[in-house]
Amino acid sequence: MQSPTPSLFPPRLLPQLQYLVGKGNVITDPARLLVYESDGLTTYRWRPAAVVLPETTAELTAVVAAVHKAELPIVARGAGTGLSGGALAGDGVVVVATTRMNSILELDPVNRIARVQPGVVNADLGAAAARHGLLYAPDPSSQSACTIGGNVAENSGGPHCLKYGVTSRYVSGLTVVLERGGVVQLGGAGRDPEGALDLVGLFVGSEGCFGIAAEIEVRLRPIPLGYRTLLAVFDSVEAAAGAATDIIARGLLPAALEIMDGGSIRAVEESTYAAGIPIDAGAALVIEFDGTDAGLDGDADAAREACEAAGAREIRSAHTAEERVRLWQGRKKAFGAMGRIAPDILVQDATVPRTRLPGVLAEIMQVAAKYDLHIGNVFHAGDGNLHPKLLFDRRNADEVARVEKASSEIMALCVAAGGTITGEHGVGVDKRRYMSLVHGPDELAAMEAVREVFDPESLMNPGKVLPTDAEIAEMDLLRATGAFV
Amino acid sequence: MQSPTPSLFPPRLLPQLQYLVGKGNVITDPARLLVYESDGLTTYRWRPAAVVLPETTAELTAVVAAVHKAELPIVARGAGTGLSGGALAGDGVVVVATTRMNSILELDPVNRIARVQPGVVNADLGAAAARHGLLYAPDPSSQSACTIGGNVAENSGGPHCLKYGVTSRYVSGLTVVLERGGVVQLGGAGRDPEGALDLVGLFVGSEGCFGIAAEIEVRLRPIPLGYRTLLAVFDSVEAAAGAATDIIARGLLPAALEIMDGGSIRAVEESTYAAGIPIDAGAALVIEFDGTDAGLDGDADAAREACEAAGAREIRSAHTAEERVRLWQGRKKAFGAMGRIAPDILVQDATVPRTRLPGVLAEIMQVAAKYDLHIGNVFHAGDGNLHPKLLFDRRNADEVARVEKASSEIMALCVAAGGTITGEHGVGVDKRRYMSLVHGPDELAAMEAVREVFDPESLMNPGKVLPTDAEIAEMDLLRATGAFV
Repeated sequence: MQSPTPSLFPPRLLPQLQYLVGKGNVITDPARLLVYESDGLTTYRWRPAAVVLPETTAELTAVVAAVHKAELPIVARGAGTGLSGGALAGDGVVVVATTRMNSILELDPVNRIARVQPGVVNADLGAAAARHGLLYAPDPSSQSACTIGGNVAENSGGPHCLKYGVTSRYVSGLTVVLERGGVVQLGGAGRDPEGALDLVGLFVGSEGCFGIAAEIEVRLRPIPLGYRTLLAVFDSVEAAAGAATDIIARGLLPAALEIMDGGSIRAVEESTYAAGIPIDAGAALVIEFDGTDAGLDGDADAAREACEAAGAREIRSAHTAEERVRLWQGRKKAFGAMGRIAPDILVQDATVPRTRLPGVLAEIMQVAAKYDLHIGNVFHAGDGNLHPKLLFDRRNADEVARVEKASSEIMALCVAAGGTITGEHGVGVDKRRYMSLVHGPDELAAMEAVREVFDPESLMNPGKVLPTDAEIAEMDLLRATGAFV
Repeated sequence: MQSPTPSLFPPRLLPQLQYLVGKGNVITDPARLLVYESDGLTTYRWRPAAVVLPETTAELTAVVAAVHKAELPIVARGAGTGLSGGALAGDGVVVVATTRMNSILELDPVNRIARVQPGVVNADLGAAAARHGLLYAPDPSSQSACTIGGNVAENSGGPHCLKYGVTSRYVSGLTVVLERGGVVQLGGAGRDPEGALDLVGLFVGSEGCFGIAAEIEVRLRPIPLGYRTLLAVFDSVEAAAGAATDIIARGLLPAALEIMDGGSIRAVEESTYAAGIPIDAGAALVIEFDGTDAGLDGDADAAREACEAAGAREIRSAHTAEERVRLWQGRKKAFGAMGRIAPDILVQDATVPRTRLPGVLAEIMQVAAKYDLHIGNVFHAGDGNLHPKLLFDRRNADEVARVEKASSEIMALCVAAGGTITGEHGVGVDKRRYMSLVHGPDELAAMEAVREVFDPESLMNPGKVLPTDAEIAEMDLLRATGAFV
């Protein structure tokens, strides 16, 4: 049964939307809206006015035009796995969920290009590409659920982005639905958009503030001919970080270089995903090389040397595809395993210069101790992209308060170490207030002005990315107190 | 002696500029202005009102403010090696030449970052990085002369961009002087700008239409531990292109994959740069792999197999650094060698899907025959970036007319093959009229609107990149005649 729509919802809009996409594809029932109240950022619960599920570009366009005419804001949502709150939509806001826009429209193996709807799941595109010996490189940890549309919005990365780069490197064309329901084609048809004013690159990472991608053209790569995967066990995260730094300093370019700290190892080993990593280890480093087979042994040998020099107590290597999966298991399941320990996890996404990793990690653990929190660190060591995972229970108000304070302090110390506030999860609502730490007032004003070009009435994902005046003032105050160097 | 300034030049501006940068650093003498009348696009001759040479960001800022107050347009110019006319400045336009802004401000080998003034020559940054075992990856053929500022404006590429990507992948921060002399800092401090609205990526390739980069922060990479360079000689350019396609299809990723056609080979071999390539060859393919030493022989063996299968009549390989330089010599000197044959060269910059290379090259040679022109092809085969070089003498009006017709037809056939109008040289004035072939009216309008954010009065490099209404109408007409599929 449909519940009455909230007071803010214009009475004529509902039947209009139902007409456009079919009655079953407009959700206003509070019980069904529940699943749309948060994304991967579980500290926030915002209830949208309605959720609409179009299937085609034409339907999406008509929906956006109708919502615009009703003067309501609109938020696009893929799988809702985002970690910065980009898909959150509050009172009186309409969510366009791309769940039904999940077709791979074209896959051209010769020119290595795919054209997809935004709701296509990352791993599904990967599977389709694999049938032609190709892969879609960006591999967020949520790739079995997250969508290409969400990846574009957040400019997502993943473990293998150390070698292959993030989403923006792979998007060559976009069909974008703008605020009023107009459609603009940016780049595309396999053409390299880098030659002129690059609006494709600008749209990638714009977090739904410019418009909604209705079709996305991406570049595919050949699946590497071979892999060498190592897992090195260390007594401390400092030693593992030292090995990672040494590997990069030797001029090696691993496809992935990932660290799990002791807390994360124990979480995994005590779960059903146990990967056989010693439970008393201080850290594990997963190193993967890929490419043509001949060079891989040399690369792996050099990485092994670096690990031994850094005091690795054990180094495993994979010789088969099954062994490779096993070495990755701990890293890939760490997030899920932590979910067993606490019902909620806040994942930070700061980056720091690689050489600052050991010091910053030590500081993060001091913050954990100060606020009596469990913090697990599983992160992309190769590009200095930290993902401290703060475990908590959102029903415990005191713990939530401590998590928020700890989160702020972690952000501050990363920025103070020369880092930035987001590596691959976007700004959303969670990192918004930190924007003025890394972007000056003129740059923020330019961002705002560019946003207005595409979304003059600020109806597309309002309140995301750009900080409020109060948030800027808060950071100015923090800076004045010497919290940030 | 200073000549009288042109009538358009406001009388009070000249002493102002002389005060700001010193009398010797403001050029209005027609004889000295001569060298600023064209860039690498020699078909155009535009005389600027004046050339100003600031040395610091403060001077640059003051100059831009003064010129803005006088309501004159301004064009930034690096070394003037650009091939699309981006640095051209006509009547009443002030050129800011960055020649004196040539300091490397910072080079941080640990975090692999350099901060430079815009007038730093690409090869000079390379030499400074090399002292730390690092390199700056983008390597335009003009790298011994062209500047980092110009590279940023045009988003320049080079032979090794097949593996390493173009300039936009390497710029992490910018200090930009805007139209009115305001300064905005975009990204920087080694921070990854990819996490939020990416204004750094937007500025790269904006061809001076948004503002002038006063400081540029770039990422450096380690110099590869080893190289394998091959040069394969073929009877036809089709065979060479087939080998290149096969190398990519095998999943190999050469650092460079360059083709010279027969005409280019003869031009080189008859010059003082003779590289010993057989003068009757139809094409030569230069293949280079780099990386850690162990894998390179396997890669080179596989590439050799591909060349043999495509009917290579001879394959040379470099075993020492000297031999590597020698194998590259023909490729690197081809442009200069063609300068011996004709005083002027128009270089096209279209890209086509790699698989279409042989067909498109045959069509280009048909255009050459039709207009009785010498066209040499030396190009980046790996990414389908063609550089047909049309030889002519600009004093021969009939030949100039034939070159312009041939150039248009080559552009049209590349676009018809699914290509785009510029790979790495920018749009400037020369490719401007083709913009509507690959960008729709809505995308062009969005580009214009984004430009207005940064340059509301259209005083920064006006008349570049975005096509006029007449040019759009001309292309619509051509399209209506069926010239473009």
